[in-house]
Amino acid sequence: MEKFIEKARTLVEALPFIKKFNGATFVIKYGGSAMTDEKYKNLFIQDVVLLSLVGVKIVLVHGGGDDISGMLKKLGKVPKFVDGHRVTDKETLEVVEMVLVGKVNKEIVKNINLHGLRALGMSGKDGNLIMAKKKKSHGKDIGFVGEVTSVNTKLLETLDRDGYIPVIAPIGVDALGNGYNINADSVAGSVAEAMKADKLIYLTDTDGVKISGKYVHSIKVKDIPKYIKSKDITGGMLPKTMSAKAAIEAGVKKVHIINGTKEHSMLLEIFTNEGIGTEIIK
Amino acid sequence: MEKFIEKARTLVEALPFIKKFNGATFVIKYGGSAMTDEKYKNLFIQDVVLLSLVGVKIVLVHGGGDDISGMLKKLGKVPKFVDGHRVTDKETLEVVEMVLVGKVNKEIVKNINLHGLRALGMSGKDGNLIMAKKKKSHGKDIGFVGEVTSVNTKLLETLDRDGYIPVIAPIGVDALGNGYNINADSVAGSVAEAMKADKLIYLTDTDGVKISGKYVHSIKVKDIPKYIKSKDITGGMLPKTMSAKAAIEAGVKKVHIINGTKEHSMLLEIFTNEGIGTEIIK
Amino acid sequence: MEKFIEKARTLVEALPFIKKFNGATFVIKYGGSAMTDEKYKNLFIQDVVLLSLVGVKIVLVHGGGDDISGMLKKLGKVPKFVDGHRVTDKETLEVVEMVLVGKVNKEIVKNINLHGLRALGMSGKDGNLIMAKKKKSHGKDIGFVGEVTSVNTKLLETLDRDGYIPVIAPIGVDALGNGYNINADSVAGSVAEAMKADKLIYLTDTDGVKISGKYVHSIKVKDIPKYIKSKDITGGMLPKTMSAKAAIEAGVKKVHIINGTKEHSMLLEIFTNEGIGTEIIK
Amino acid sequence: MEKFIEKARTLVEALPFIKKFNGATFVIKYGGSAMTDEKYKNLFIQDVVLLSLVGVKIVLVHGGGDDISGMLKKLGKVPKFVDGHRVTDKETLEVVEMVLVGKVNKEIVKNINLHGLRALGMSGKDGNLIMAKKKKSHGKDIGFVGEVTSVNTKLLETLDRDGYIPVIAPIGVDALGNGYNINADSVAGSVAEAMKADKLIYLTDTDGVKISGKYVHSIKVKDIPKYIKSKDITGGMLPKTMSAKAAIEAGVKKVHIINGTKEHSMLLEIFTNEGIGTEIIK
Amino acid sequence: MEKFIEKARTLVEALPFIKKFNGATFVIKYGGSAMTDEKYKNLFIQDVVLLSLVGVKIVLVHGGGDDISGMLKKLGKVPKFVDGHRVTDKETLEVVEMVLVGKVNKEIVKNINLHGLRALGMSGKDGNLIMAKKKKSHGKDIGFVGEVTSVNTKLLETLDRDGYIPVIAPIGVDALGNGYNINADSVAGSVAEAMKADKLIYLTDTDGVKISGKYVHSIKVKDIPKYIKSKDITGGMLPKTMSAKAAIEAGVKKVHIINGTKEHSMLLEIFTNEGIGTEIIK
Amino acid sequence: MEKFIEKARTLVEALPFIKKFNGATFVIKYGGSAMTDEKYKNLFIQDVVLLSLVGVKIVLVHGGGDDISGMLKKLGKVPKFVDGHRVTDKETLEVVEMVLVGKVNKEIVKNINLHGLRALGMSGKDGNLIMAKKKKSHGKDIGFVGEVTSVNTKLLETLDRDGYIPVIAPIGVDALGNGYNINADSVAGSVAEAMKADKLIYLTDTDGVKISGKYVHSIKVKDIPKYIKSKDITGGMLPKTMSAKAAIEAGVKKVHIINGTKEHSMLLEIFTNEGIGTEIIK
Repeated sequence: MEKFIEKARTLVEALPFIKKFNGATFVIKYGGSAMTDEKYKNLFIQDVVLLSLVGVKIVLVHGGGDDISGMLKKLGKVPKFVDGHRVTDKETLEVVEMVLVGKVNKEIVKNINLHGLRALGMSGKDGNLIMAKKKKSHGKDIGFVGEVTSVNTKLLETLDRDGYIPVIAPIGVDALGNGYNINADSVAGSVAEAMKADKLIYLTDTDGVKISGKYVHSIKVKDIPKYIKSKDITGGMLPKTMSAKAAIEAGVKKVHIINGTKEHSMLLEIFTNEGIGTEIIK
Repeated sequence: MEKFIEKARTLVEALPFIKKFNGATFVIKYGGSAMTDEKYKNLFIQDVVLLSLVGVKIVLVHGGGDDISGMLKKLGKVPKFVDGHRVTDKETLEVVEMVLVGKVNKEIVKNINLHGLRALGMSGKDGNLIMAKKKKSHGKDIGFVGEVTSVNTKLLETLDRDGYIPVIAPIGVDALGNGYNINADSVAGSVAEAMKADKLIYLTDTDGVKISGKYVHSIKVKDIPKYIKSKDITGGMLPKTMSAKAAIEAGVKKVHIINGTKEHSMLLEIFTNEGIGTEIIK
Repeated sequence: MEKFIEKARTLVEALPFIKKFNGATFVIKYGGSAMTDEKYKNLFIQDVVLLSLVGVKIVLVHGGGDDISGMLKKLGKVPKFVDGHRVTDKETLEVVEMVLVGKVNKEIVKNINLHGLRALGMSGKDGNLIMAKKKKSHGKDIGFVGEVTSVNTKLLETLDRDGYIPVIAPIGVDALGNGYNINADSVAGSVAEAMKADKLIYLTDTDGVKISGKYVHSIKVKDIPKYIKSKDITGGMLPKTMSAKAAIEAGVKKVHIINGTKEHSMLLEIFTNEGIGTEIIK
Repeated sequence: MEKFIEKARTLVEALPFIKKFNGATFVIKYGGSAMTDEKYKNLFIQDVVLLSLVGVKIVLVHGGGDDISGMLKKLGKVPKFVDGHRVTDKETLEVVEMVLVGKVNKEIVKNINLHGLRALGMSGKDGNLIMAKKKKSHGKDIGFVGEVTSVNTKLLETLDRDGYIPVIAPIGVDALGNGYNINADSVAGSVAEAMKADKLIYLTDTDGVKISGKYVHSIKVKDIPKYIKSKDITGGMLPKTMSAKAAIEAGVKKVHIINGTKEHSMLLEIFTNEGIGTEIIK
Repeated sequence: MEKFIEKARTLVEALPFIKKFNGATFVIKYGGSAMTDEKYKNLFIQDVVLLSLVGVKIVLVHGGGDDISGMLKKLGKVPKFVDGHRVTDKETLEVVEMVLVGKVNKEIVKNINLHGLRALGMSGKDGNLIMAKKKKSHGKDIGFVGEVTSVNTKLLETLDRDGYIPVIAPIGVDALGNGYNINADSVAGSVAEAMKADKLIYLTDTDGVKISGKYVHSIKVKDIPKYIKSKDITGGMLPKTMSAKAAIEAGVKKVHIINGTKEHSMLLEIFTNEGIGTEIIK
Repeated sequence: MEKFIEKARTLVEALPFIKKFNGATFVIKYGGSAMTDEKYKNLFIQDVVLLSLVGVKIVLVHGGGDDISGMLKKLGKVPKFVDGHRVTDKETLEVVEMVLVGKVNKEIVKNINLHGLRALGMSGKDGNLIMAKKKKSHGKDIGFVGEVTSVNTKLLETLDRDGYIPVIAPIGVDALGNGYNINADSVAGSVAEAMKADKLIYLTDTDGVKISGKYVHSIKVKDIPKYIKSKDITGGMLPKTMSAKAAIEAGVKKVHIINGTKEHSMLLEIFTNEGIGTEIIK
């Protein structure tokens, strides 16, 4: 019995946080091991469902790296990179789209729906959700790689009003119908910007951002360029921190970078004052 | 850190219960020490707020025995009882109404509002919420003691639609404007009946219903008359079990009788499979 | 028959006034003999019901002086005054609240409902309707006496949309849950201000405001300070005229001070061009 | 001053009647001297406006006899009658329609609008309000004389929702677009039937129905055939009482036949218990 | 079969135009032979119905010249003109109103309704749709000839929301209830202005506007005064072009003057890039 | 010019059909060459857009045979069939889902959106749109091949209310989250059934159903079993006609089987009385 009372106490301790985020909008970039590793997958979905049930409006944006590479390999496509960007020809784009939209997206949708909620998966082509344009890399043509030009927030509001959780694959489309593969971190940033989200959360496989070799709890937006110059921020943290900067400058309240391989890391970040990853704030 | 993860696990364990009761209506009879003892008061309010934030629609009905007796005593009124019913003359009724509506009710309203929710207190006279008629006790006139004839559920729905938690004092009114003091247990039962509530919860100072000297976990409605005859059910349990019977026969799904002096008893009853009080079921 | 035709003529004569106030909001401070004397009580309720039926949105704010003093006396509390303000300790506040909310308020609610309308009584604690702060009197602590800081007009609109007449007891609450006894005249003024009411009506026991010993029909807001200085305006007229001034400066169209012991004085003020009390205008 | 108080008393005396009819639907057949005589016209409009402002939903159906005959005469048409029905050829119908819709209807609309309300005039052709079919008189073809087959109550509800008072000219239309002149008494009856009106009121130039040479206050529907056989009911009272019978059998609560040349007769009928014309009841 | 495929091709060719005007508002001045000649009448109604079904919101304003003159003649009224304006005494106005509202208007309403749509005819008096004032002609009194002062667009929106097509007779009313005969071209212009219509279309009996003796396809608003001075624009084209100018300056996107005696001229103007009449643009 | 008038005439000829289907729901099974051949693709989309603009509510269900086989071949999967059903192991299902949802579905969505409409693609997993169960073939396990158990029509209504055209890939899901490949013809039938569609249209590569070697214009539902027995109906026509039968028995008004390789065949079927394929009726 004492065990149960302890449990009830925990629920009640979460009250101030539940009250704080009731009605808030969280855009979550879902990726890394939390998306691919069976161990973490279910824990993540539980966290999403819990947040949704206590009144948080969730929008998921997912990536899909490993599955894409696997399929391209099976199909005998030799990967080509320019300045770290995958050169995306028409055939590669088709595979990217198939894997992201037809496999990864529906897997997430299915898992959420299994918990009794109602998720609805979308490519950026659906209802022209993500309008995009071709991205150049230092002036070089890297194929069908895009960047977001606008987000159809009205569609997201319609779905929210009827209680659906949107799950978005990072595919964009331009006015001529060309599809584009877009970095999922920056799609998440653009969606958060367009919705003026309360939080933008990046799920990664590390414990946050390292500055001078140590994970830090909090970073100010104005210091990001400095850390990029000092090479503290590099690699996959670049699009995350750049998108975080843009999002915060456009009105998003806070950005979190947290470790999806830590059990319930998302709840810990939100339901404790300490948090466990790196927050990016104004 | 492990402590926090443990907490998150507890939150997630509550998921199936949260999902089950999201959107459900609970009518709670609030009374006993949980209402008068500072130790339990705050714990109860926290439970109410938590249930409300995870999507349960709460209606509170409260009693107010001790405060009433105290005030009557201060005013020099000598209590008179007939068959266990307080004989309620006009002056007594006025005191009952003042204490219940002007003191006890507003104290509860204030406490809930302090937690950031919006409670709205009401007497049965407000918006003709509780229509009542004179109750006779074995043919004897016991004054302005009443029983419920109908409940204005439309008002409760209006308040719910705008997110207010109704807090109801057990005063009724008849078509001529006469006020009546009504047993709070039976008001709670009538409100639950009228709203076809999912749960009707009685908060008491004991661990439930004792049959043959032992607290039992579950009672079937059809056995209640038998237990009354056998004097297993007596005293304050009589109006509770009788109202429970009527409520369940009118479509309320389950009635709980739980101990409000056990920390978070309401959460335990709802968020665990075991529960801790007595449930009354079909 | 001629008598009846005469009656019909009277109804028709009221047409221009009915048209003028259809859809308008009147905040009425209800007090004095019109509230306590059986002779005038029913006449007042009839006036309220009539105004409501011809399309005026009514909000009542009531006082309750005599009942409070009576109850305090019965309980053996010795009144203490500082600069004309009743020093309100915790115990006194509790009695004030019980009498105002549990007795006076419900009596008015009941009387309106008896006429087939739907009134809903509220303390300022309900739905945090009246937020208040402690008032100081010339720097001296006079206990739980407050002044209004804000009014939850959204709740009043919700009730109006569903056809309920709000009846407000002048109790306020602060962010810490402390209750305050507030002058009913100034609560009425604050409610009128917050709702940008068309009319604010003070029901008193005199024929209006006397200037140089004579009742005047009309007073300009800008002249009020002058009349206060000249001691034409003193006593109970001070909070009324000061609240009237604030209300008109905040957009209320007109304030009336009328005699509630004159039969149908409110109708006369509104349905005739002459009026019978004192109006305060810009 | 006493005079004014007397007036207020009269307003208050009307309260029970106002309460009774608040939200009720009255279909009024407007005709006779009340429509053509300047003396009575304005009094009638005032009554309509008053009823509307105290919450009665009004639908007017008007006739137009004299104006039609006048215009036909000016145009040199020789009237022809069969069994009391005007034989209506195409040219006659055109004149009837022009006078009813283009003149009489707009005159009424204008007069109501002058009082600050919003009337909207309609022929049965507008929005297919009155669908009709050809009427035969004892097997003889009497031209474009029709009877109602259905009423588009949805249009009337739309107009009511936005606060418009419908004013209907008794012209019907069939599925082929043929127009029909219809007896205004029976159009009023059909509209009242279709709307399940609370009252159907016939304004005439006499004091009601005479039975055995004396005006009677009340007639039972079941006695109408008897009175027709006994020739107590003849002439213009035939379509009124027949439509009244059909309306009451279809759910209309009460039918009134009152004298429009008596000042405020409509108010008297409604706002007094005595009434002044003949009522037809179940 | 090939014939049918050709037809389908034509439907599909109309697609870009249908998409362009879906949801747009067209105000159409209906007059001339298209309104009086049986040959063109039905073709016009078909065009209106087609536009309505592909999502264009239609408002019709009609004239009625010939019918009015015919009726005045029948009634022996001798026409009198001042500066080209018909001097309109009270009796003339009555005839104008009867013919326009009671005959012409209802004929159009009936014809549209026969095609399964729902038209609702109105005079400017209905719901105070067209408020007007007396017009003077060079300082001379020409009787009840008016000009528009305001349009009750709210009524038009109400009707549109429920799918009714408003058909408006060019009669206005002032605050005293005086009716006015108004030039239908300028009523159409005022309605288009008030509704900020996408198109204002004048149906005439000529192929558009002639400049220097030749029909031109397009006229700029700024050139209209020049063409009036040069007498290129005279007679009936004056009110059309002047109203067009005012409408475009008030935000109407385009004005068309087209020949209603050319089969389907309205569709040709709208569904082809070439068009067939004269457009007036900014 | 004459050419243009001819075009307008064609538009007007379509009027009765447009009126007939305004507001109707068409479920279209999109497949065969009309989906894969560039020649016919664009013509089909134009037909869909036209129907949508004239007020038809469209729901598309598509297949994807060739693309699936192509991809399976590329991935080296050897196809295995049992009784004509493709044996669908887990890996095959994954490929089927990727191709249908990630490629074929988004291609259709993109093409419709390019025409200015708003299509939203969905798998049956999205919002649990298509609930399914495992299908057995003569008792043999053929893997993840399913049949529809229910359709979430509420989601389709939500999308329709906001003007989105649903495009559905024939993937179902069961309560445990297992995906199923379902015959697109029978998904279309189930969707039409669930929505009580006005029309269910099958687009094929032949001119309809052949009976005794000749294409027939019309088939009665009751004759379908007979034609199956006589082998007139075989192969791909079996699921179509069986689904048609079930749909019509469940309230769908008419089923059409038409040739998608004939230009504008869908418009011809709908906008002409003759039609060009085979209709299945009650």
